[in-house]
Amino acid sequence: MSNNTYKIITVGREFGSGGREVARRLAEELGFEYYDNEIITEIAKKTALSEEYVREIIESEPHKLYPITVGNSIAYVDQYTQYQIQSVYGAQTKILKDLAMKSNCIIVGRCADYILKEYNPYKIFVYASKDSKVKRCMERNKVENEYTEKEIWKYIKKIDKQRSRYYEHYTEQKWGAKENYDLCINTTNANIKEVVAAISKIFK
Amino acid sequence: MSNNTYKIITVGREFGSGGREVARRLAEELGFEYYDNEIITEIAKKTALSEEYVREIIESEPHKLYPITVGNSIAYVDQYTQYQIQSVYGAQTKILKDLAMKSNCIIVGRCADYILKEYNPYKIFVYASKDSKVKRCMERNKVENEYTEKEIWKYIKKIDKQRSRYYEHYTEQKWGAKENYDLCINTTNANIKEVVAAISKIFK
Repeated sequence: MSNNTYKIITVGREFGSGGREVARRLAEELGFEYYDNEIITEIAKKTALSEEYVREIIESEPHKLYPITVGNSIAYVDQYTQYQIQSVYGAQTKILKDLAMKSNCIIVGRCADYILKEYNPYKIFVYASKDSKVKRCMERNKVENEYTEKEIWKYIKKIDKQRSRYYEHYTEQKWGAKENYDLCINTTNANIKEVVAAISKIFK
Repeated sequence: MSNNTYKIITVGREFGSGGREVARRLAEELGFEYYDNEIITEIAKKTALSEEYVREIIESEPHKLYPITVGNSIAYVDQYTQYQIQSVYGAQTKILKDLAMKSNCIIVGRCADYILKEYNPYKIFVYASKDSKVKRCMERNKVENEYTEKEIWKYIKKIDKQRSRYYEHYTEQKWGAKENYDLCINTTNANIKEVVAAISKIFK
């Protein structure tokens, strides 16, 4: 265990469950720093890769990005890709640890629960029923109204599959398995504002 | 949905996780009624079966208590056992519903989350790591010191297997699967007193 004096809260979440809202509200309630996509920007800067490319690596399925290298010219490309992925993950690890040593903070996603385990983070997972997630996404989608419920559910499943594979690839733990978290919050019937106000008392 | 005006909280728990402590403290904090083994006593009274026999039925594995009936004299015994089990479950259902209509309350175990679903209960599940559960049981076991850690772990697994089978038999849901609960609390690294004080704010 590191003797870091800052409190670290990590938030894993299913797509559409309101996990980001939980994390953001909790950060506001506690006056903690909040990190999410900003981390990607930081990684991009450190690795000299474009932000978009880093995002693509982070959000894709790493086992597909690790092709078996064979002794031909293709292998050079693959090895280079591998090197890039490793450097993104390495940079992410370094940045997360830097952030954890800088102040109390809440970090969304990015395997932070696993990467920061020596800092003894409080690990939250946020989830919801299918209907609730589709409804939340439909509301976001309201203005343009470009997707049907069926399309949205397909998209939710796709994103969560990516998250799950990314997490499992790096941590060798099951994404979303309650054993890996201190608290699992189902937002299906919850008033997120009230639940967060209550939960925040754990850290006060 | 029933238009019951009382708040109902159900608590499922792994053996040795401190789930009963969570439930009892939460009841104290909120001034809610607390029901656990008392329910069994009530059932015993209503079914005119002995408390011990009711406990045996409730804590055993129902699929084993439902033998296939065939057309011989054994079948009469089996049918009678079946009848008894059904009347215990039926009485339990009635009692839980009576309690839910009487006052705000917290109910531990007994498939209450499922039986009372029309009353829209807030469903909590309490769990912990193997080491943490064994440690908690060893502490209870301190005075007499009659069991080894290995024996205790075997016992914990046995009880949870019974709970899981009982729950799954009656609810056709997976016991402990986070999807079936509003909040899952891991007590492994938790200060139960502090967590309960925080959680209780959800209901205030």
